[in-house]
Amino acid sequence: MSAEQPLDPVADQIRTVLDGRWAGVRQQLRADPDFPVAVPALELGLEEHRRRTLEMCTRLGGSDLVRAGLPESVGGAGDVGASVTGLEMIGHGDLSVFVKAGVQFGLFGGAIAALGTERHHQRYLPGAADLSLPGCFAMTETGHGSDVQSILTTATYDPATDELVVHSPSPAARKDYIGGAARDARLAAVFAQLVVGGEGQGVHCVLVPIRDEDGQPMPGVTISDCGAKMGLRGVDNGRLMFDRVRVPRDNLLDTYGAIDDEGTYSSPIESVNRRFFTMLGTLVRGRVTVGGGAGAATRSALTLAVRYGLERTQFHHPDSEREVAILDYRGHQRKLLPRLARSYALALAQNALVEKLAAIASGEIDSEHEQRELESRAAGLKAMTTEHATDTIQACREACGGAGYMSLNRFADLKADTDVFTTFEGDNTVLLQLLAKGMLTSYRTEFTDLDTRGAILFGARQATSSVIEHTIGGSLIQRLLSGAPGRDGDDALDDRGGQLALFEDRERHLTETLAMRLRRAGDEGADQFAVFNDAQDHLLETARAHVDRIALEAFVTAIDTAPEGPARELLATVCDLYVFSTVEAHRAWYIEHGRLSSSQAKGVVARTNQLLGEVRPHAGTLVDAFAIPRAWLTTEMMDDLAEL
Amino acid sequence: MSAEQPLDPVADQIRTVLDGRWAGVRQQLRADPDFPVAVPALELGLEEHRRRTLEMCTRLGGSDLVRAGLPESVGGAGDVGASVTGLEMIGHGDLSVFVKAGVQFGLFGGAIAALGTERHHQRYLPGAADLSLPGCFAMTETGHGSDVQSILTTATYDPATDELVVHSPSPAARKDYIGGAARDARLAAVFAQLVVGGEGQGVHCVLVPIRDEDGQPMPGVTISDCGAKMGLRGVDNGRLMFDRVRVPRDNLLDTYGAIDDEGTYSSPIESVNRRFFTMLGTLVRGRVTVGGGAGAATRSALTLAVRYGLERTQFHHPDSEREVAILDYRGHQRKLLPRLARSYALALAQNALVEKLAAIASGEIDSEHEQRELESRAAGLKAMTTEHATDTIQACREACGGAGYMSLNRFADLKADTDVFTTFEGDNTVLLQLLAKGMLTSYRTEFTDLDTRGAILFGARQATSSVIEHTIGGSLIQRLLSGAPGRDGDDALDDRGGQLALFEDRERHLTETLAMRLRRAGDEGADQFAVFNDAQDHLLETARAHVDRIALEAFVTAIDTAPEGPARELLATVCDLYVFSTVEAHRAWYIEHGRLSSSQAKGVVARTNQLLGEVRPHAGTLVDAFAIPRAWLTTEMMDDLAEL
Repeated sequence: MSAEQPLDPVADQIRTVLDGRWAGVRQQLRADPDFPVAVPALELGLEEHRRRTLEMCTRLGGSDLVRAGLPESVGGAGDVGASVTGLEMIGHGDLSVFVKAGVQFGLFGGAIAALGTERHHQRYLPGAADLSLPGCFAMTETGHGSDVQSILTTATYDPATDELVVHSPSPAARKDYIGGAARDARLAAVFAQLVVGGEGQGVHCVLVPIRDEDGQPMPGVTISDCGAKMGLRGVDNGRLMFDRVRVPRDNLLDTYGAIDDEGTYSSPIESVNRRFFTMLGTLVRGRVTVGGGAGAATRSALTLAVRYGLERTQFHHPDSEREVAILDYRGHQRKLLPRLARSYALALAQNALVEKLAAIASGEIDSEHEQRELESRAAGLKAMTTEHATDTIQACREACGGAGYMSLNRFADLKADTDVFTTFEGDNTVLLQLLAKGMLTSYRTEFTDLDTRGAILFGARQATSSVIEHTIGGSLIQRLLSGAPGRDGDDALDDRGGQLALFEDRERHLTETLAMRLRRAGDEGADQFAVFNDAQDHLLETARAHVDRIALEAFVTAIDTAPEGPARELLATVCDLYVFSTVEAHRAWYIEHGRLSSSQAKGVVARTNQLLGEVRPHAGTLVDAFAIPRAWLTTEMMDDLAEL
Repeated sequence: MSAEQPLDPVADQIRTVLDGRWAGVRQQLRADPDFPVAVPALELGLEEHRRRTLEMCTRLGGSDLVRAGLPESVGGAGDVGASVTGLEMIGHGDLSVFVKAGVQFGLFGGAIAALGTERHHQRYLPGAADLSLPGCFAMTETGHGSDVQSILTTATYDPATDELVVHSPSPAARKDYIGGAARDARLAAVFAQLVVGGEGQGVHCVLVPIRDEDGQPMPGVTISDCGAKMGLRGVDNGRLMFDRVRVPRDNLLDTYGAIDDEGTYSSPIESVNRRFFTMLGTLVRGRVTVGGGAGAATRSALTLAVRYGLERTQFHHPDSEREVAILDYRGHQRKLLPRLARSYALALAQNALVEKLAAIASGEIDSEHEQRELESRAAGLKAMTTEHATDTIQACREACGGAGYMSLNRFADLKADTDVFTTFEGDNTVLLQLLAKGMLTSYRTEFTDLDTRGAILFGARQATSSVIEHTIGGSLIQRLLSGAPGRDGDDALDDRGGQLALFEDRERHLTETLAMRLRRAGDEGADQFAVFNDAQDHLLETARAHVDRIALEAFVTAIDTAPEGPARELLATVCDLYVFSTVEAHRAWYIEHGRLSSSQAKGVVARTNQLLGEVRPHAGTLVDAFAIPRAWLTTEMMDDLAEL
């Protein structure tokens, strides 16, 4: 591939929009000669890959990127946004490094920062940051991953010695898939049921040394290796069993639950349940980071596949001797361009999410409601971004044919490495449920006084607009919505406000009807599980509709930051493609619920096809605007094409 | 996992239906202690994996399975059905062995059998079968894969020496991704543009020695290694360049084009174009085999994921202390059960395809029309089966969460190995086009006298039933169709005939309207490419509708072979799930085209959910009926579950 060339002005303006608030961090990493570029994993043995990954993480540990994320009290910049954005960029490089760094700095360091108090920060965070203290995050167990509240590991306070006794009572209690456990970690942040004075206080986090300075397991700790995985082979996932391992009381991370010198437990949060969700909520950063990395990997794949599609030819044009570039085929455009548009929407929604995370971390925003909204949105966006990654990277591989199957052409690792993103940091199904439940909670809060079904129906129809909160770009979105033509107008979908209204309408209707269905669980004699289970697909669809809508709002808001002219116009066209291809995918629903007529729905298909034609000439510009340095995406297939 | 246990009677009756005509071959392989069970690929180095794969193929080479496929003239049984079915079973085992065996026996041996004449058979087939002559099939080039007619390699007859000169004139002419080329193959079946007396005769196949007895490249042959791939690491894919390599005239496989002693070319087929497609058509067996292997791999994945879903629990039941098996969740059922139903439909369609292949190979059926129908159907079924494999194995991995990501649990290799099935033996998009074009040709043949657009419309509306040919289960299907209630009746979808009519109706409408759209390409001044390209997604959809319909016919026909009773009833319920989930996926189309009302479409969604509940209690039986020996599917995750 050719050396790095400056972007053309339109691509560069779009890059600025996509780069968002932490553009500086992105540009710095793009120019960084030490950036951890991926090498094909199959070239390395497992041990060599793990060694290399640790080495790259250690190098990162000394960088601005990691320092940015530390609290100011231990010499950091307290700039969570810069740190999360930096990690997202690592997602363009080696994904083992991305994940191992995420575990070390985000999860292990993040747990200490969020759940620990000042003495923990001072003692552990510098080592967590510079990797002189390699750690791991031991939450998931063989028996329970999604249902963290049911984990079985115990941490029992022993007043006789003022220690906590950490124990795995059964094979199901084994800590499993723990990144860092198999090889490198010395200290584990272990999630366990805290028992003080015989009373269970729910899940808390305790720091447990698992290896000594020589790398030998500590007494009572049994460590095993998960061995080879589909991907992420540079990450040393392992398993931990504890046989009554004793650690000082001080090792309890005690922001949300402390044991005092008299051995008495206290917490600022009375309810065990609420305490649990509050503690878990502080760990939202990991989930945000995974979404960012998935987005980055997706953009890498799209960049490769679109560039390949622009150069690769196969069949002759029927009217001439030349061969047709494969991206000129409608079928190929259908494969890549709607996914490209969706990647834009999701990237901009991710930026908005990181801004909110940073605002809450800095204290700029400080409300329980906003924290809950952040958690819900992070859950939903992580689910949809990682699902989109799996789907899109697969489509990109197929779009490159046999070349896409060769290890040297990156898709093998992009696919294998990101595959588990839909599972870790929260299984996507569970996360979408979390989001939907959050949406229902807001909904119930709005309609708390209306407790019969009829009243809900009435209330919902009257006061619907208040159910939808415009968390991104509030006043702009509101203005567009009020200018929208009525939904029956044929031109509604050509108007940005009309598009927003159509997305909102779907979300609102799904939420209202879901609330009504679930309300039946409260009926006398109702089989709660059956009621919930019958509505599960409805519930998941509701969550998806929410993410579709906020992604559109993020897109619309970002377009507004682009300078007037071709960049802005192109972004608007890509946004249209996102809208039309999304509505097309759900058009059965829109017809069934009287939102679109059959002929309008056919019109949506036709307009989507038309937009593919409009976006096609700019496909190169749109992937150039991702601004992934060519050196990070070197592949044999593009070299081969250049030779033909 | 437990040792092999006999199937329960219902599962065994269903197994008999699924096993089809070559049940004996399947049962023999299930009991074969030498069956090539997969080992996790990442445990092996590339060289070790290739060595092991060759060894297993060599062992297969001496077996009944391979002998079954050889012509009787060289000591075989001429039983193509047994051979293809046997290879399908290997698809449950090591997929590198499946592919390498497919290349050696199916493609290399198959090309010699189909394109060569008796002297080639006698000289080469025994060695191709027992692997004393390892070969490769050198068709695809770096510049052209899908468009084989445009390959650049030349084979020029030199009357001075009575030789063919095989040459790669440019980098684009390099033979690429050739299985066997990198390490083992000694003789290549090279596809090249045949030039005799300065005149091009189109693509022919020439046998070219590429390595000597010591494994060294022959003079003029440059061999390179494609290196590591995403999967199929036991297959030694490589690249070949020829620098004016001379072989005797006799090395031309000359069934469809021969050069006589005077150096004159002759062919039984006048048209270069028709000759090309006839030659390619004889190679249909490879495509059939790939579909079979994809189906087998999919059933392996489903067996693992369904068994896991039946045992794995996570959250507590709201009304009791017990935890819910994850397959009890609607969301999880949605992930696995419609795909399970579709796997049944596709497996039965595959059986019907193999029967037709065998009937044509044995001469039992002998008509140009039937051969074309076989080719079209093989193309469509290969595309849909491999697409279904990619989609389903992914869903199964996700359904097993983190456990699904560990190499020991098989999904890594199932995914990586089958990923390229959507590309090789014909890119799926190209294959669906091939099928659609075949459908249009039949359509045009029916309506050849009607050449204005109006007449087509008229003709189509009048004579539609003749467009759809009931290639599978003809009289049974016809009887069900005639007993079907009218399509406006609400009960139409509960009737098998009504279901068949609904599938047919979609296929017919798509075909008719496609024909009308493409007819515009013939208008004066029309931009042919634009007309075709605008209709490409319509064309692909038409092909898919065709495969959906024949899969339903195969399913319905197979149910009829089951004994009355619970096995037959269960199959009927699974068939209903196939029907309803397929209509659900396309319900926008059905509404838009006036085939279903909005409320009927909503009913389809509700009925699909209801069927999930009906199938759920039998999910274990349905995967048991695949009868994949437990020893072939040993996984750590099931052992882990057994311990919890």
